[in-house]
Amino acid sequence: MAKRFTADQYADGILAGNRIVLSQAITLAESTLLSDQTLTQHVLDRVLPHAGHSVRVGITGVPGVGKSTFIEALGLFLVNEQQKRLAVLAVDPSSQRSGGSILGDKTRMSQLAAHPQAYIRPSPAGRSLGGVTRSTREAMLLCEAAGYDIIFIETVGVGQSETAVHGMVDFFLLLMLAGAGDELQGIKKGIMEMADAITITKADGGNELAARRARREYQNALHLFPTTESGWQPVVTTSSAVSGAGVPEVWGVVQQYVQQTQASGYFQQRRQAQNLHWLHEAIRHGLEEQFYARPEVQAQIAIVRQQVLQGQKSAFGAAGELLSM
Amino acid sequence: MAKRFTADQYADGILAGNRIVLSQAITLAESTLLSDQTLTQHVLDRVLPHAGHSVRVGITGVPGVGKSTFIEALGLFLVNEQQKRLAVLAVDPSSQRSGGSILGDKTRMSQLAAHPQAYIRPSPAGRSLGGVTRSTREAMLLCEAAGYDIIFIETVGVGQSETAVHGMVDFFLLLMLAGAGDELQGIKKGIMEMADAITITKADGGNELAARRARREYQNALHLFPTTESGWQPVVTTSSAVSGAGVPEVWGVVQQYVQQTQASGYFQQRRQAQNLHWLHEAIRHGLEEQFYARPEVQAQIAIVRQQVLQGQKSAFGAAGELLSM
Repeated sequence: MAKRFTADQYADGILAGNRIVLSQAITLAESTLLSDQTLTQHVLDRVLPHAGHSVRVGITGVPGVGKSTFIEALGLFLVNEQQKRLAVLAVDPSSQRSGGSILGDKTRMSQLAAHPQAYIRPSPAGRSLGGVTRSTREAMLLCEAAGYDIIFIETVGVGQSETAVHGMVDFFLLLMLAGAGDELQGIKKGIMEMADAITITKADGGNELAARRARREYQNALHLFPTTESGWQPVVTTSSAVSGAGVPEVWGVVQQYVQQTQASGYFQQRRQAQNLHWLHEAIRHGLEEQFYARPEVQAQIAIVRQQVLQGQKSAFGAAGELLSM
Repeated sequence: MAKRFTADQYADGILAGNRIVLSQAITLAESTLLSDQTLTQHVLDRVLPHAGHSVRVGITGVPGVGKSTFIEALGLFLVNEQQKRLAVLAVDPSSQRSGGSILGDKTRMSQLAAHPQAYIRPSPAGRSLGGVTRSTREAMLLCEAAGYDIIFIETVGVGQSETAVHGMVDFFLLLMLAGAGDELQGIKKGIMEMADAITITKADGGNELAARRARREYQNALHLFPTTESGWQPVVTTSSAVSGAGVPEVWGVVQQYVQQTQASGYFQQRRQAQNLHWLHEAIRHGLEEQFYARPEVQAQIAIVRQQVLQGQKSAFGAAGELLSM
């Protein structure tokens, strides 16, 4: 990025709904330059009073589940039938990518990407999980300030990013395939736990029966768990991006969740708790970054790790030594 | 604690299997005094080469599941029939206790407590989760150095301590009741996820049929999840502390797990990963402790939290301000 605007220029452009300025501001938020990060904070301070008025939905599922086609089908329903403005952001730390690209190009969702009420942003390349989640959260706030009613945050469903995304959204949707038997398609246990809804994708043609069976199985499995903090009982549906069947229903579930948790006050409480969580996460991240960059720590850490690994030193004792250096 | 020994005196007493010295050393590890923590590290450095040779089992279940009677039954089997030496430690951060005391007095397991090969240690009172998990991990190492072959770490099964305990044991056992329907007795979702085995307790008398049904249900639910990193498929059994039925079988499952994971190398790998995890946890904990104790941070943190809570400041921006103070 060659040129920088002033914080006010970014903010004014975003608040006016200018997509080009929005994209430039997100690029700024993704920058690792300290000066860019400071500028980003100034932009955020300006636009924050206008953010927060969207429904934030995390969407995940392993490669092959049909995430792009599902998101495009649901997205087109939202922008065309519901007159919503939708932003789709991706979290895909390339350092831990384990197959299956995500939003690498916009051709994946060509119809949605071309729609004036939709904004699709691929994941920044070559960043750590911490960096990606930070910039994704900032991108989300910027999109809200630009007037998007609904934010989708998409992850590849194979690892750690899901927990981070769960910590920044209101609703977590898991896409699953029918007929994959006991294996749950490599979805980590913890991910299923976080789901507010599961939709069995590709429920069309010869696959419909299997999808309905899978729906029952997952519903039974989820019933075994107690209701969550929110009082919400996770819902399992079937859907087909090809026929469109079940796609609006998924959005109905999200709306039901939002109504129920807004009425109970949980929705707002959770947003506040998430804000605080991110404050303390950011502090922790900053402290660790400063600590591990110290020359005396860098000189010792490999040796100490080895000693702790081999059980020659206790973890707490070794930590104390490093901290007092 | 009035009197302190030297590190060598503690270490020698522990290595000689002196239970009184062991108890005093654990009390030392639980102390929040900096001088005691330093002394504890010296003791640990001395005894560490003799630690690590036990099987570490986390045991949890909500109040009412019959945890004490089960642990006593299994413990008596281990010390009497298997000639093992068993230490039982409890993790129960009083700050977040939500009903049901744990190892508050040794009368709960009077037979086991009186046995010369068993050592029962109640949870230290009035400590934070971080403090309790730290001292529990240290107590575990001290007990190992004192020659205990098997360490049980017991938690109340209602919250956060389970994750911490899961990070310090080899095997995680969850106790469940039959016939509690869909509710899973308030067990948090994440806890069931961590279980290497579940045993349905109180499987006696009129309850046997329900226990067997519950066993099948849980086994089916667990089958829905993919096999874990260890390659181990969680096992569900039924047991009765009253009749003793199924109690030795639980130990058989633990032994099978240990054999399988030692053969594959996973057992040792996981121990090493846990050591490293605790090193970095301890560093993080120390950094945060130092940071939040700074006078300038203490003066600002409440205001900043409020601003972030209300969405007036972005979490990352606010963190950056505090970190640069």
